[in-house]
Amino acid sequence: MASPLDIAVVGATGAVGREFLDVLEQRRFPHARIRLLASARSAGTALLYRGGSVVIEELTERSFEGVKLALFSAGGSISKVYGPIAVDAGAVVVDNSSAFRMMDHVPLVVPEVNPEEAAPHRGYAKPGIIANPNCSTIIMLVAVNPIRAAFGVERLVISTYQAASGAGAAAMEELRTQTADVLAGRPAEPKVFKEPYAFNLFSHNSSLDPLTGRNQEEQKMIDESRKIWRDPSVKITATCIRVPVLRAHAESINITLKTPATEGEVREVLSRAPGVTILDDRAGNVFPTPLKASGRDDVFVGRIRGDESQASTGSGAQAKFHGFNLFVCGDQLRKGAALNAVQIAELL
Amino acid sequence: MASPLDIAVVGATGAVGREFLDVLEQRRFPHARIRLLASARSAGTALLYRGGSVVIEELTERSFEGVKLALFSAGGSISKVYGPIAVDAGAVVVDNSSAFRMMDHVPLVVPEVNPEEAAPHRGYAKPGIIANPNCSTIIMLVAVNPIRAAFGVERLVISTYQAASGAGAAAMEELRTQTADVLAGRPAEPKVFKEPYAFNLFSHNSSLDPLTGRNQEEQKMIDESRKIWRDPSVKITATCIRVPVLRAHAESINITLKTPATEGEVREVLSRAPGVTILDDRAGNVFPTPLKASGRDDVFVGRIRGDESQASTGSGAQAKFHGFNLFVCGDQLRKGAALNAVQIAELL
Repeated sequence: MASPLDIAVVGATGAVGREFLDVLEQRRFPHARIRLLASARSAGTALLYRGGSVVIEELTERSFEGVKLALFSAGGSISKVYGPIAVDAGAVVVDNSSAFRMMDHVPLVVPEVNPEEAAPHRGYAKPGIIANPNCSTIIMLVAVNPIRAAFGVERLVISTYQAASGAGAAAMEELRTQTADVLAGRPAEPKVFKEPYAFNLFSHNSSLDPLTGRNQEEQKMIDESRKIWRDPSVKITATCIRVPVLRAHAESINITLKTPATEGEVREVLSRAPGVTILDDRAGNVFPTPLKASGRDDVFVGRIRGDESQASTGSGAQAKFHGFNLFVCGDQLRKGAALNAVQIAELL
Repeated sequence: MASPLDIAVVGATGAVGREFLDVLEQRRFPHARIRLLASARSAGTALLYRGGSVVIEELTERSFEGVKLALFSAGGSISKVYGPIAVDAGAVVVDNSSAFRMMDHVPLVVPEVNPEEAAPHRGYAKPGIIANPNCSTIIMLVAVNPIRAAFGVERLVISTYQAASGAGAAAMEELRTQTADVLAGRPAEPKVFKEPYAFNLFSHNSSLDPLTGRNQEEQKMIDESRKIWRDPSVKITATCIRVPVLRAHAESINITLKTPATEGEVREVLSRAPGVTILDDRAGNVFPTPLKASGRDDVFVGRIRGDESQASTGSGAQAKFHGFNLFVCGDQLRKGAALNAVQIAELL
């Protein structure tokens, strides 16, 4: 990497924003000055970073002077306004919102899957926007991509178990507060989510297409996976559910392969995959959980098994299955958001 | 129904046992004397029932004298020993454990699906055992059976979101206690489950087949559905997950039909189905949740939508889909256990 550069974090006080700081610090991401940008409300307060204290500045049109890399996680509307301003100022923007993901000229990158898409911006040669995919998409792709590379993927049926953090710090606080209220016999007061959250779960809170019945989260998983894989024909259906967990998503994934494989072959491929840790002890009943994935970089994969409801040939260890089931967990704030964005920046 | 009969509840102090009493009371199930049976530890204490107090007796080989109906929910090993004793004493046993479910001569009954299987025992003409299916199986079948009856079912891919109650009252208490501990900054102490439960989820705690990788809960869903439907060829794969919810299960169900159907046709069939309440408001984002299902008799069905990852023909309201997605919630203690058992008794 060339001489250190000035970087900016937009939405520094949010759940993902704070995670950006942790990840930049832990990975010793090389930079000169760091600007922490947020709304006027937070300006003037300070955040701890690399043993010091950095004062938060108000996000304005002039915030990006001299900035080479801007990490955005302040929602789609902020990204739409300030992303292009940062690019005009000469920055590469890595944007965590959905604002630009599906635009043709915007690379949508999971470093383990399609790092080459970031190439035009390497060395900060060209300002522009690189989009960070949806958290559920990233976590699924890290687990399924190695299997797809080896055996091809015909179809995916996904059910998610999504944590509060995907809806931000206020949602995490809502889960804690409501749960304490319910345990104390007080009524739970839904604020962030419409449904009560304590000891409950509910269909993802994003809006639904009245015709297809899919919610935005489900549509993102389909559209983003197809774009990242450059495979508009891959068949995907998803049911996205919010569960009372704080910060790691889980996903139950049923795969139909193009070429059948033995369980050993699928395991072998996953064991060599970047960003994947296998946790799959049948005798001990030890598998991925959100708590095990929390604060960790890797996506945890377990319950790897041939799917008895799809065609198979042979038996025992030689049995070749057309389908597989997986259960995966990944930290929504890290690999699902901040870590993936910083890994994109590391490609530059 | 003939003259009132003496009944017994085995495992009266457990989570399902107490629910038996609620359901018998609410449905005004006609009976003469009721015997509440439990271990020596609970004997002598009393439970409220129909405005009075009933003293719990210790379960012994002589507990079933004069009893015509015995509702069992005290675990498989108690059922194996005392079920046949109750039958020898002349009772019809409705057993909530998995001990007898897969035996050829034992009817496995969901009243909405296969009430005719209970016929040999009608009018208490013949003592014997009728098995109550697994909670996840019952809840799934109530929702899917009407669709199967109309269009046929080729394959099911199911992911469950299972409540603490499936593992009994101690598991529900563990969820509450651990959650209070975590909120207070104390370490969570796993006792009933190996994995921490507060703000966490984990693969179902039943043991796994080392070869297939399926856990017992998943295998039950497959085997019991095939037996109840008398259809050994129906293809089913399930991933069973325990979530931090107290007493209602949720399931994400992906269906492949034998005959394609429009969404309107599937909705119409479900709207006429016994035991089903549709809750499916896309504009308002109102769908089934465990809390809405808790304490309720019906299985709630929502997120009814054609599956874009399977073949379809036509478009708009006329589109015919080979596959559908559903999200269902049902009270594990009621329809998943006590209510279904009492409904079986009502068939008699």
